[in-house]
Amino acid sequence: MNKIIECIPNFSEGKRQDVIDAISNAANSVPGAKLINVNVDPSYNRCVHTIVGEPEAVLEATFRACQVAVEKIDMNCHHGEHPRIGAIDASPIVPVENVTIEECVEYANRLGERIFCELEVPVYLYEKAAKKEERIKLQNIRHPEYEGLQQLITQPEWLPDYGEAKLHPTAGAMPLGVRGPLVAFNVSLNTTDVKIAKKIAQCIREAKGAFAEARAIGVFVEEKQCVQVSCMINHKIVPLYRIIELVRMEAQRYGLSIIGTEVCGMISKEALMDSCAYYMQLEGFDPKAQILEDQL
Amino acid sequence: MNKIIECIPNFSEGKRQDVIDAISNAANSVPGAKLINVNVDPSYNRCVHTIVGEPEAVLEATFRACQVAVEKIDMNCHHGEHPRIGAIDASPIVPVENVTIEECVEYANRLGERIFCELEVPVYLYEKAAKKEERIKLQNIRHPEYEGLQQLITQPEWLPDYGEAKLHPTAGAMPLGVRGPLVAFNVSLNTTDVKIAKKIAQCIREAKGAFAEARAIGVFVEEKQCVQVSCMINHKIVPLYRIIELVRMEAQRYGLSIIGTEVCGMISKEALMDSCAYYMQLEGFDPKAQILEDQL
Repeated sequence: MNKIIECIPNFSEGKRQDVIDAISNAANSVPGAKLINVNVDPSYNRCVHTIVGEPEAVLEATFRACQVAVEKIDMNCHHGEHPRIGAIDASPIVPVENVTIEECVEYANRLGERIFCELEVPVYLYEKAAKKEERIKLQNIRHPEYEGLQQLITQPEWLPDYGEAKLHPTAGAMPLGVRGPLVAFNVSLNTTDVKIAKKIAQCIREAKGAFAEARAIGVFVEEKQCVQVSCMINHKIVPLYRIIELVRMEAQRYGLSIIGTEVCGMISKEALMDSCAYYMQLEGFDPKAQILEDQL
Repeated sequence: MNKIIECIPNFSEGKRQDVIDAISNAANSVPGAKLINVNVDPSYNRCVHTIVGEPEAVLEATFRACQVAVEKIDMNCHHGEHPRIGAIDASPIVPVENVTIEECVEYANRLGERIFCELEVPVYLYEKAAKKEERIKLQNIRHPEYEGLQQLITQPEWLPDYGEAKLHPTAGAMPLGVRGPLVAFNVSLNTTDVKIAKKIAQCIREAKGAFAEARAIGVFVEEKQCVQVSCMINHKIVPLYRIIELVRMEAQRYGLSIIGTEVCGMISKEALMDSCAYYMQLEGFDPKAQILEDQL
């Protein structure tokens, strides 16, 4: 059974297409790892690369992409709306198939050590990879931003997990984490009253005592002329169907219904099959053996 | 976009393992076609091979398997409980991906012509491949069985679609058809009263005026101590979720509930995704682009 992970490095470049392309080419240069998505946001001046495949290949591909970013991005000239502390910003490693969170933490440590040794960029480990409690939340590491971290890094409590008490002169520092596989999932309701979507979102958020790792907000969507409960969930903790049915239940007290749902970006087969099996009440189904196309 | 078909030849051998293995080896000897299942029934004295892949490869693999069956099976010594007219019995070709029924009919004609020309086995085309209305139903072709067909084949209305007015001396004749992709699907109810399952099955069966190509029976399942509505459906005509919800609706008049469902054997990704998307109310989901594992 092949192990599959995903690494999603964020880079502080959202405008110079030649730089983004150079990063993409490096990210796609290792057999066994595939760059499956590049998301570019010019106003954030930031791009997000999604690299999937066998762990060793993904680590190598991510390292090569980071190497290009360190060469080409100068944080002293970087401006953008999104918080960041370096040329390589938040980079989560995510287990996809036959891999544990603990293995991903090991991968993060190996990658972090290499990034410091070969690229001289200090690394802060966050979320599941955090070695200190106050570094679990990415926002705690990132709030001083590149500019503020230049001073702070000299304080003992800001010593990086890999690296010394100083930033890379142009690339800053890198936040490197491990997290569960989050699915971005929206549930649309037949109303334009965003207050209701915001209230329902509270029933899902970890921050409000609901599902671990779940984030949720209520938003009004102009082009659909309706509101959405917009979530990021770890389907291994809370399956998609439970989110759908909870939103349905809460919407009923306002006389509202679900008019559609959306998966934004990628989702694992397991996350879909889980909800499929729930709704169909499927017993003893083995997707690996029973799905025709997967036999080829 | 790769074309994928499935061919499911039935052979009149369910006891001699060396013969079954020789057929399996031939069925699995063509790159691009894969033998994904062999079902052997000793009391029927019959085996069923499922071959999937690119059309040309599947046709070649099926031909090779048929060739071995013709060499090794003598219908004059064959006994079994299941009706049959030859060493190669009912063999449906089924569209799986990016292939139409019409293309499969063309494949059936090519395979049938080759089987007669090279193996001298006369071929009757049935279901979607039938050239005569009375040959649409397989049972019409098969009811005289091998023994009866020796006389009947000399009558003008029994002239094969490919072949002359006589059987192959040891291999008899071959029924070759095209049908939609049928899914074997069971819905279990919380009762032991098989009369109820039989009644509900009537609401699904094509024979009772319900869904085209749908077969359904009500059965009592000893090991589950409950009844099942056991169906074969073409999911392109009636999706699985519609069967589930129809059974649920009908069961409610008896105060009964669905306690589980089962997919027997293979199912296409499309058939599952269709029901998944219905229940989740998914909008704009593209399985080809958004399922993570399929990107690799």
